[in-house]
Amino acid sequence: MSVKWMLVFPLLLVFFVGSTSTGNVLVWPVDFSHWLNMKAILDELIARGHQVTVLVPSSFLIMNFSEPSRFQVEVISVPIEKEDMETILQDFVRISAYERHELSFWRFFMKIFDLMKELLHRNRIICDTVLLNEKLLKKLESAHFNILISDPVTACGELVAEKLHLPFIYSFRLSSGNTLERLCGGIPSPPSYVPASLGGLTDRMTFLQRMGNMLFYLSQDIVFQHVLFKQWDTFYSEVLGRPTTFCETMTKAEIWLIRTYWDFEFPRPLLPNFEFVGGLHCQPAKPLPEEMEKFVQSSGEHGIVVFSLGSIIKNLTDEKSAMVALALSQLPQKVIWRYKGKRPEKLGANTRVYDWIPQNDLLGHPKTKAFITHGGTNGIYEAIYHGIPMVGIPMFGDQPDNIGHMKAKGMAVELNIHTMTAKDLVDAVNTVIHNATYKENAVRISQIHHDQPIKPLDRAVFWIEFVMRHKSAKHLRVAAHDLTWYQYHSLDVIAFLIVCIALFVFIVVKCCTFCCRKCGSIRKKTKKE
Amino acid sequence: MSVKWMLVFPLLLVFFVGSTSTGNVLVWPVDFSHWLNMKAILDELIARGHQVTVLVPSSFLIMNFSEPSRFQVEVISVPIEKEDMETILQDFVRISAYERHELSFWRFFMKIFDLMKELLHRNRIICDTVLLNEKLLKKLESAHFNILISDPVTACGELVAEKLHLPFIYSFRLSSGNTLERLCGGIPSPPSYVPASLGGLTDRMTFLQRMGNMLFYLSQDIVFQHVLFKQWDTFYSEVLGRPTTFCETMTKAEIWLIRTYWDFEFPRPLLPNFEFVGGLHCQPAKPLPEEMEKFVQSSGEHGIVVFSLGSIIKNLTDEKSAMVALALSQLPQKVIWRYKGKRPEKLGANTRVYDWIPQNDLLGHPKTKAFITHGGTNGIYEAIYHGIPMVGIPMFGDQPDNIGHMKAKGMAVELNIHTMTAKDLVDAVNTVIHNATYKENAVRISQIHHDQPIKPLDRAVFWIEFVMRHKSAKHLRVAAHDLTWYQYHSLDVIAFLIVCIALFVFIVVKCCTFCCRKCGSIRKKTKKE
Repeated sequence: MSVKWMLVFPLLLVFFVGSTSTGNVLVWPVDFSHWLNMKAILDELIARGHQVTVLVPSSFLIMNFSEPSRFQVEVISVPIEKEDMETILQDFVRISAYERHELSFWRFFMKIFDLMKELLHRNRIICDTVLLNEKLLKKLESAHFNILISDPVTACGELVAEKLHLPFIYSFRLSSGNTLERLCGGIPSPPSYVPASLGGLTDRMTFLQRMGNMLFYLSQDIVFQHVLFKQWDTFYSEVLGRPTTFCETMTKAEIWLIRTYWDFEFPRPLLPNFEFVGGLHCQPAKPLPEEMEKFVQSSGEHGIVVFSLGSIIKNLTDEKSAMVALALSQLPQKVIWRYKGKRPEKLGANTRVYDWIPQNDLLGHPKTKAFITHGGTNGIYEAIYHGIPMVGIPMFGDQPDNIGHMKAKGMAVELNIHTMTAKDLVDAVNTVIHNATYKENAVRISQIHHDQPIKPLDRAVFWIEFVMRHKSAKHLRVAAHDLTWYQYHSLDVIAFLIVCIALFVFIVVKCCTFCCRKCGSIRKKTKKE
Repeated sequence: MSVKWMLVFPLLLVFFVGSTSTGNVLVWPVDFSHWLNMKAILDELIARGHQVTVLVPSSFLIMNFSEPSRFQVEVISVPIEKEDMETILQDFVRISAYERHELSFWRFFMKIFDLMKELLHRNRIICDTVLLNEKLLKKLESAHFNILISDPVTACGELVAEKLHLPFIYSFRLSSGNTLERLCGGIPSPPSYVPASLGGLTDRMTFLQRMGNMLFYLSQDIVFQHVLFKQWDTFYSEVLGRPTTFCETMTKAEIWLIRTYWDFEFPRPLLPNFEFVGGLHCQPAKPLPEEMEKFVQSSGEHGIVVFSLGSIIKNLTDEKSAMVALALSQLPQKVIWRYKGKRPEKLGANTRVYDWIPQNDLLGHPKTKAFITHGGTNGIYEAIYHGIPMVGIPMFGDQPDNIGHMKAKGMAVELNIHTMTAKDLVDAVNTVIHNATYKENAVRISQIHHDQPIKPLDRAVFWIEFVMRHKSAKHLRVAAHDLTWYQYHSLDVIAFLIVCIALFVFIVVKCCTFCCRKCGSIRKKTKKE
């Protein structure tokens, strides 16, 4: 009997720790592509039998509340119109993509800064609506959630988790200058080889670039500390009824699921509770709709080009769309263009425009030769997954940085939406299709993406379930979070050692001087005597 | 047909990158427990169909060359006697475990330092024997290996790999002060919360401890750079026929398989090419030999205590072994004691002494209540795997540090071999058995160990096969390796910025002084007029 027990014990242990009874998950989402990525995780959680409740502000743009959903949706009725959010977003695109080149750096920065403040103001309204609503809080409390998953691009998810005494996990792409990851996540980022997010640099920098990188880090720290943190610190303390800060609350995240991987990312230091799960939403291509498949097949040996500027870019100027249409018409490939705006008058016979396209399925189609993209992370990962070289036309947010990464990895060419001509676009597409290195690099990067010990989605879900099983992942949390900034950088130790050395040198010098004088006076005395 | 192809393409990609045709592996091993851990990896590689050749110096102590082996063993006949190695090792144990308390710190340090130099000298002889033997090198070259696995506790593995143009992987426990990992592996270790290996601290340090930690790091850097690196730099350059250094050669390691995990380790920053695979050699317990099983079963509800001081400690003094025997005889548990030395005259009826024990199987036995151990990493991981609390009697090397970790995690009590009494030993065993927190912590740590997305051994083998498939893992290598130390710490940038600020302040002050003077002289002139 004991022998049996011996064999059974480790299995029981594995079974005990390896099995998660179905859990109850609360979600604090962010709109648009953030939601699409988060949804892939939630779908998998539901497929594994967990219950998922999403807290959605009524101003959320991408979710259609009338559509049936597999999630429990808790709509938070906020005094913000959808149109209002849409206007801010389109202003953001307009300024970033079009006005950037007409404005001075300072004017551009101030305009973006004002928009960020507008978004922050609305974030605060949403936060107030949830956290000052006792009835909602009681309802959430009585639902006995096991975990909260938050995207920290909008604040407050961690505060809801703390208020409800729930462990929480982040699903995150980035903050400007990795500021949240560094200051609140504790991840070390030596400015000498870790390029600041949105700084447009790679991991190989010249002296001037390294200086720029360091100054960019510093500037972002100042902006975040004086705008974002300041806005939240008092509120977080009030809500939790104890002195705390926004950043301190963020340090309690059990796991940070980062939406990239080393196929895309430049290798850099990480922490045990940072999991890089980029591309978790990607899947093998499914068959295309019949009409689209016919069009794709008609491309013959030339194949097709897939073109999309994402869900936020809804309209180009007439002039720009005509130029794009002209360029596309000059390609020997068939082109599938996702575009919701006013159709250009002259569209090539080789081009079809769609309101929506099954992008992942198209990128996974064997006829696909290239992808013209604005450089959103989700789209880039679909291209990586299927090994398709890219022409990047980045607009705003992380897009320029994303395309920068893909250029550095040799699987993309970059164009500037503001200055590009039809010839530039044609040349760029031809380059990524006919210069074999782009395809070779795309396949190599794709191989790296696929060759992981465990798939990104499985890893993400594993750690969510881990936190539900153990109620935390504290064994992965660095002690750095309990140090002040000067302790973390050992500045107090260095200062103390410098003082000690200075004191030692001072005493030695004084002793020597004293001895010399003594000797001198003794010699004088002897001389006199 | 195209739809089929669509579905098949990603599968093909996964298949292509996911399958490794059997490879040819060369191994540069280290003696004793290092070899036992490495062997677990090699056994798995052989089970997966790879060919494994181990380069074994004839002075290697643990391997019996006459025994049949599943590995190809290439014995390097070196002018070093086994007895010579054994003597150095026993000197090492004697000084560390017994003489430490009788010697001044400086005298102890110098004795250990001399022994390290002796070992280094023998390492160099082995290295010479391999690398100056053209015939052996040609033989190795013609064997067309795909990868070399090395334990960098002894140098030269990386040099053999470079000479044969092979990618290489490290299997490593630690270097004193994490010096090799930091300076040659690039892993960041902020001294404020990452305790230096062998420094005996945890991740939560007082001001004085943080200072001690920083000074320990600095001292190790000096020792390594002036003794170890200096010894090898010229030799590595000569052998490779180009100017290089020992450390630069080490930076080329594709992956560092570190023989710990976050169950044991304090959470700390890591790099993408560092995999923490602690406990990869552990397995579910197999049935015990019949006689041993009967003895274990006879323990009734009290259960058993397993006692081993490892394979290196062969003898205790008569006095010490009598004291241990007396202590063990006072326990209500049955005791299984692995001990090769002279048997103590009075042995309790509850104690049985064995030359060798199936340690993992005993620790996995449901009757086992506690483990008295010297604190070797392999044994500690077996205790973690099976959730058994420990009494640690560390002797030398990483043992005091290992037991320190287990104490900090609440699953061990520490005793000092030099000062402990029979009562101390009895009390310690009673504490870890009857104070429930020790068992609770042991089970908690064990759960963390077992609850990983993929088993440590599978992860280790995955990355070895990955490097064989792709011929490298360069996508995980940080650009930090191509920076000088002052560039890495941004000292050039900081110096430049300080000079700029100083210059700016100087110019502003000069301008102000100039203006003030001008104004003064104008005022004087006006006054005069």
